[in-house]
Amino acid sequence: MTCTPLSSFDPAADAAHAAPFWAVSTPPTRARLLQALALELEQHRDPLVALAHEETHLGLVRLHGELDRTCFQLRAFADFVLAGRLHAVEQDGAVDGPPPSGRPQMARVLVPLGPVAMFAASNFPFAFSVLGGDTASALAAGCPVVVRAHPAHLRLSRAVFHLVQQVLHEQQLPSGLVGLVDGASVEHGVALVQHPAIQAVAFTGSTRGGLALQGLAAQRAVPIPFFGELGSVNPLVVLPTAFSAQPSEVLAAQLAASVALGMGQFCTRPGVVVLVDSDASRHFIAELARQLAAAPMHPMLTPAIAKAYLSAVQALRSAAGVNVLVEPAPERMGALLATVKADDFVAQGDLRHEVFGPAVLIVVCNDDSALVPVLESMAGALVATLWGAEGDSPLARQLVAAATARAGRVLFAGVPTGVAVTRAQQHGGPWPSSTQPASTSVGLHACERFLRPVVYQSAPAWLLAGLPT
Amino acid sequence: MTCTPLSSFDPAADAAHAAPFWAVSTPPTRARLLQALALELEQHRDPLVALAHEETHLGLVRLHGELDRTCFQLRAFADFVLAGRLHAVEQDGAVDGPPPSGRPQMARVLVPLGPVAMFAASNFPFAFSVLGGDTASALAAGCPVVVRAHPAHLRLSRAVFHLVQQVLHEQQLPSGLVGLVDGASVEHGVALVQHPAIQAVAFTGSTRGGLALQGLAAQRAVPIPFFGELGSVNPLVVLPTAFSAQPSEVLAAQLAASVALGMGQFCTRPGVVVLVDSDASRHFIAELARQLAAAPMHPMLTPAIAKAYLSAVQALRSAAGVNVLVEPAPERMGALLATVKADDFVAQGDLRHEVFGPAVLIVVCNDDSALVPVLESMAGALVATLWGAEGDSPLARQLVAAATARAGRVLFAGVPTGVAVTRAQQHGGPWPSSTQPASTSVGLHACERFLRPVVYQSAPAWLLAGLPT
Repeated sequence: MTCTPLSSFDPAADAAHAAPFWAVSTPPTRARLLQALALELEQHRDPLVALAHEETHLGLVRLHGELDRTCFQLRAFADFVLAGRLHAVEQDGAVDGPPPSGRPQMARVLVPLGPVAMFAASNFPFAFSVLGGDTASALAAGCPVVVRAHPAHLRLSRAVFHLVQQVLHEQQLPSGLVGLVDGASVEHGVALVQHPAIQAVAFTGSTRGGLALQGLAAQRAVPIPFFGELGSVNPLVVLPTAFSAQPSEVLAAQLAASVALGMGQFCTRPGVVVLVDSDASRHFIAELARQLAAAPMHPMLTPAIAKAYLSAVQALRSAAGVNVLVEPAPERMGALLATVKADDFVAQGDLRHEVFGPAVLIVVCNDDSALVPVLESMAGALVATLWGAEGDSPLARQLVAAATARAGRVLFAGVPTGVAVTRAQQHGGPWPSSTQPASTSVGLHACERFLRPVVYQSAPAWLLAGLPT
Repeated sequence: MTCTPLSSFDPAADAAHAAPFWAVSTPPTRARLLQALALELEQHRDPLVALAHEETHLGLVRLHGELDRTCFQLRAFADFVLAGRLHAVEQDGAVDGPPPSGRPQMARVLVPLGPVAMFAASNFPFAFSVLGGDTASALAAGCPVVVRAHPAHLRLSRAVFHLVQQVLHEQQLPSGLVGLVDGASVEHGVALVQHPAIQAVAFTGSTRGGLALQGLAAQRAVPIPFFGELGSVNPLVVLPTAFSAQPSEVLAAQLAASVALGMGQFCTRPGVVVLVDSDASRHFIAELARQLAAAPMHPMLTPAIAKAYLSAVQALRSAAGVNVLVEPAPERMGALLATVKADDFVAQGDLRHEVFGPAVLIVVCNDDSALVPVLESMAGALVATLWGAEGDSPLARQLVAAATARAGRVLFAGVPTGVAVTRAQQHGGPWPSSTQPASTSVGLHACERFLRPVVYQSAPAWLLAGLPT
């Protein structure tokens, strides 16, 4: 397929026109936009959340929380830009004498890449959509954004986009700073990635879709970076000491809520729980089964996602050594809970594929010594959780090392769903959880995806004087 | 091709065995190794430089300088590691209350990726080879390295590798920390990139070779990052004011030396000079022709490189509107100097392909207004040079903007050959000069290629206590 315009309507070209202006915009200008966008979302909170619920079924409480997070995120990036972090200049003074110790004056700045194509996710209609973290971080970094709307919440995307355009108009900013591609077909996304004006892609979605788009980004006449958050089976390892620190009912309730939240349609949902067989762990499993069977359920994001979930459940329940405790019934969509012995889990790679939905597989180890090998059998993940590692021990250290080697975030208390938007956050781990594990799509480092360094060597005084101090 | 071992001899597997130890090594341990490697090179300076000259013909003076730079670089990374920059922890304290403003405690660290495959370049037998910047930055970052030796200086590579092994032995470090693959065939490089133990690739070489290896890295069962420095046609724009600031003879002598240095076989050599027609610029061109015709020449790195150079010269001289002033003769390998008018240059994309050798094409503009469009017709480059931009003017600002948009380094005085190893250096620009323009292969930021962030959330006291402060 060649680089054809998306139609006579061409938001990527509009973004390219807006790019030079936005690249040299000041921190106050960028912050003012981000803050106004947050305010606009809040001022239209009720109708937006209602529309989001209508399209996604994710529930009003959760969606209000997601809108809060999205506004918090926009303001966090505004504060970050105002603090001058993105505009910092790294200077090496000149040193007299011949090289290598002698050197000219060097001033390193970060410059924006240009228009970013952003592929919205189905499961976060606010936080990973039109005004989500990718858009906020790209705008903060000085890049226009063209959002590929997710078909699962198209009306909400258009409503939010309409608000964005109002704010841009009010602030007399180019309308091309944020564009929307909302055509239903795959070709619209393909044309966006192939559009010569696009300089980077941020994607959150399936491994299959992400791989295809990544290939297109690499095969362009001018290849561009592709930041994809793909699939992740997030392990949760329960050390035996966890059960002495907290009642197993409490732990089971926490985990069940995390697995069932939003019908399990979250990238940080724990997918595999690894524990050691004991009275306490058996009680924990029974309690988890009870809680998951009773957990409130709602329709999944799309019929296709529901179908894929049921087919993954079917595959899992027919795998060798898998013992099903809770499963969806024909008349009632619901959670899956199953157990498998450590040896059977390690032997079957298929058990380590992501199931997108409220499913959790418990891997039961005969003793402590199997915990590390089970964790080491797993691929890269967004987050690994270790319960019961509060005390220093050789086992705790081995588990931290194994978790560090295969996750972007390692969590020691609570559940992995719910990703805090902080400066130090890391949401992106080794393959397949992320195509660029050195990057993050949540937290203030997310801006770095859309910047590249340029060093000015022996720059004239007028240029140095114009750089931020 | 499947992931077959390189042979019974498997340096990537050895690197994988050494990786966990090196990943947790302390700054003093890493610095001691880097410093000892620098000392070892210096202590064997004369025979190593003699051998390098024998294999590459690059000249003793230049090769001594390159060895100096290589040792300086190893020590700079040692100092960087000792200063704790790579081991810094970014902490967000816990904040009470519900999310999004409430948050758990977060501690972000950088962890090494694991074994790095490093493809040596033909043209820097020290600085981009066995102990070059890629190896120094990977070792500093905590990653073992497997060097793919360049066939153009195989004996030197083996000699340096032998010294490395002696130092590793003396310091009782695993021999797998630095490996060497020196088989002559392409398949050895392919097998290295496909080896499951390899976690990242650093490559300096041709666009064709780099693209092929990048494809292999992306198609692995577990894809890995590929940091390639490929081709670059580095523009040098001469504003008319440059000729009033310095005599054109001086400028011509500087440029001729930069173009002819090492038979022009350097990635930062200026390939296209853009200037405005005037008496001064005509004098400059005539002087440049005189200097280039008289510049000392020597055999190129390999017969294949010489053949490719002559064939590129032939293509250039037959392009429309190209006027050849200096060219290699059948009996004497030498520089190429040609001029072309701005319109003819912009119209012919073939004139903007890299010629690897002592070639420079002068683009002559009728007036100032053509300088920016000519620069904007060019692709991404490692370095863009602007002569005569000392004074603030709209034209200078436009040229800085155009240069910033397409280069990793923008230079305002002197010549682009010779890359200072400093903290702020940036050696990597937009496509095709680099496959990852946010990364650098020279300067202290080079370590970042081989690290990824991991955040510990609500980490136990014993873990936080073990992190560097």
